[in-house]
Amino acid sequence: MDQTPQPMRSLTFSRRAADMPRSSIRRIFNAAKELMARGETVIPLHIGDPDFDMPERIIEGVTRAMRAGETHYSPVPGIPQLRQAIAEYIAKRFGLPFTGETDPEADVLSMQRITCSQGATQALNGSLQLICDRGDSILLPMVHFPNYIQQTTLAGVRPILYPMDEQFQPVLDGLDELCDHSTRAILINSPSNPTGALFPPDTIRELYEFAIRHNLWIISDEAYVDYVYEGEYLSPLSVDWELPLDKRRVLAVFSFSKSFASTGMRMGWTVCPRGDIAAQLGLMTEPLTGSLTTPNQFGMLAALSEDDCHLRRESLNKRRLVAARILNENGFDVKPVAGGMFYFLDISATGLNGDEFADKLLAEEHVAVVPGSGFGLEPTYHDDGSILFSPNELAARCVRLCFGVPEDKLIEGVKRMARFIAKYTE
Amino acid sequence: MDQTPQPMRSLTFSRRAADMPRSSIRRIFNAAKELMARGETVIPLHIGDPDFDMPERIIEGVTRAMRAGETHYSPVPGIPQLRQAIAEYIAKRFGLPFTGETDPEADVLSMQRITCSQGATQALNGSLQLICDRGDSILLPMVHFPNYIQQTTLAGVRPILYPMDEQFQPVLDGLDELCDHSTRAILINSPSNPTGALFPPDTIRELYEFAIRHNLWIISDEAYVDYVYEGEYLSPLSVDWELPLDKRRVLAVFSFSKSFASTGMRMGWTVCPRGDIAAQLGLMTEPLTGSLTTPNQFGMLAALSEDDCHLRRESLNKRRLVAARILNENGFDVKPVAGGMFYFLDISATGLNGDEFADKLLAEEHVAVVPGSGFGLEPTYHDDGSILFSPNELAARCVRLCFGVPEDKLIEGVKRMARFIAKYTE
Repeated sequence: MDQTPQPMRSLTFSRRAADMPRSSIRRIFNAAKELMARGETVIPLHIGDPDFDMPERIIEGVTRAMRAGETHYSPVPGIPQLRQAIAEYIAKRFGLPFTGETDPEADVLSMQRITCSQGATQALNGSLQLICDRGDSILLPMVHFPNYIQQTTLAGVRPILYPMDEQFQPVLDGLDELCDHSTRAILINSPSNPTGALFPPDTIRELYEFAIRHNLWIISDEAYVDYVYEGEYLSPLSVDWELPLDKRRVLAVFSFSKSFASTGMRMGWTVCPRGDIAAQLGLMTEPLTGSLTTPNQFGMLAALSEDDCHLRRESLNKRRLVAARILNENGFDVKPVAGGMFYFLDISATGLNGDEFADKLLAEEHVAVVPGSGFGLEPTYHDDGSILFSPNELAARCVRLCFGVPEDKLIEGVKRMARFIAKYTE
Repeated sequence: MDQTPQPMRSLTFSRRAADMPRSSIRRIFNAAKELMARGETVIPLHIGDPDFDMPERIIEGVTRAMRAGETHYSPVPGIPQLRQAIAEYIAKRFGLPFTGETDPEADVLSMQRITCSQGATQALNGSLQLICDRGDSILLPMVHFPNYIQQTTLAGVRPILYPMDEQFQPVLDGLDELCDHSTRAILINSPSNPTGALFPPDTIRELYEFAIRHNLWIISDEAYVDYVYEGEYLSPLSVDWELPLDKRRVLAVFSFSKSFASTGMRMGWTVCPRGDIAAQLGLMTEPLTGSLTTPNQFGMLAALSEDDCHLRRESLNKRRLVAARILNENGFDVKPVAGGMFYFLDISATGLNGDEFADKLLAEEHVAVVPGSGFGLEPTYHDDGSILFSPNELAARCVRLCFGVPEDKLIEGVKRMARFIAKYTE
């Protein structure tokens, strides 16, 4: 023990806190808020939270639970009846075996493979910590949801971004060379936030083969599973179940938020390859957040009692096509996205980068979109141990537009944006 | 990049996940559950969740919010009206300045110093990550809430346990020698889970002086702030506000769970010394859990509209005295605890350690208590980088008993326990 007086240091934040990049949504969110505070009307195409009302059955489920005294701690991985209902729901969704059997040894989908979480966010963070130590690396998509980078920064895990082409599809050639002995996992997010791209079945299978080849876990962020509009959807989860139990490697993360219009209820879950993995992931929840909100779990149990996701999908599908049509009519060439609730538009023809574009569009047309820069953060490691993140070129020339707003606002917002693009492209 | 084929490794958990100690409550929890599944009645003195009903106004607040469409994402640090209400509540509670002013530059308690969280658990984890990097150390009480150790393990932070005497008061002599240049913070938990000890004002002031001397942050776990029955209570937060802004160092973590009988709603908050610290702590929440449950925040806003904590305190106070009286009447010498909802009883006179005691008590008397071993985890670092935790002697000879059960059950449980102690002590 060092008994000499310590030199005075200032009371500082940790390196990980200081290094953690800020969400790029926040800057435009605040700027839009300021405009609105000045009495201006802003068309909000920046937030990924559609205008859907939460289904009545969820409100009733939560209220009923509170009235029944379900306001105490619940088991950390979730209440058994919810975990079992999720297992049944996912089994049906993906054609996996479900018999009602809950013996952890039985190779059927059951509550023993399900760990609930505070939204998909906590599930992704828990999964990362479950499989990666500080100094390990994880393969992330080159264009990605910013939370991934924040999570790796806090956990001391090194993100390796795998390249994507102009259609935001992974470039499989050269992937093997990105791995080294520290690489523990690859993250797949299809359909993607922010790009809306859906990876074709062949790509999913090749990524899975790649994961086998390098002994990697696969974290599959399936938040937008219920928003696939065209193209064939194959989840890494389905591929996992084609293999014997001891070969499986997919931690599939789902979100009630998106599928059941309940973003503010903060409930998600992970489907794990084996019971022991689900149990360990559940244990990780103890120090991260403790048990989940008990009444909300009963709300989500009610959510699963009816499959009305197609209603929301149809509604968003219509808006997706409207947005593409208006852009195309105005000379901006864009194909409808295959999934999700976003367009990630290359606006470099305007001579602006995504940040400039978002700022000027907000100022000149009162339309809020998110600069792409925050969705493509590349780390640079400095000698002093700090990390600096800078946007890659692919993301920096794009902006993200959410089409989850009411149709009249969407039409007006996209029209203004098309006008803005035309003005700057001339 | 390493292009040679990688040797096959097995798909394993991270070291941090493997090293993280299991909650000691779980083993006895499962054993009790098994007994009950066999039709036996178990008196549950093991769970720290009193039998209080959640106040009606919280149920109404949550329901009203859902009906009003407050089911979408909310600001990550909490909705402004809740943060401001918490500021006012805490200011009143601790006699701190509150003017309604929300300018972050003004030195009054306001929403700018408050960050809400998913229970105290997430606040403690976020605070730890905010100020400690991997390799840093933090001083924790020798007898402690197990989550602390789980959190340091996941974060790669080294816990240094500060010694306590037989009354579970910190031994201040020699504290300076425990610190080295890696030490970033000291955690204070008074009243304590599991010990029920309240640190006297002089001790709090000496710990604060110690923190100044070594330039440490103070994390003050105030989960049991509303359960002080005797003795003078001084929060590190009060000491903090005696000093100028740039000297303050206390992150004070509070829990709606305990104060407002809403453990299953998972809401807590942190009072930060400055606005920039609260803002940074809020940012940490983004990747850890994302925004909080929106309706529950309105529920907690309703909770704060009425100060009925004294009702629950009076109820627990009565049970606290009942438990001590029965134990004393049966020849087991114990003083009523000063705070919290637990007795941490040295049962070594029985010739059993805490683990043996808890197992046998459950088997022979069907009374569940928690072995003390899990509340005193000392790390040993191995050459391969792994950490092994073993219980220190002080904790290992104790068991934790929660007196938050209905009085008739408490009386019966403590009587059986006293009988059991007498039998083994003879």
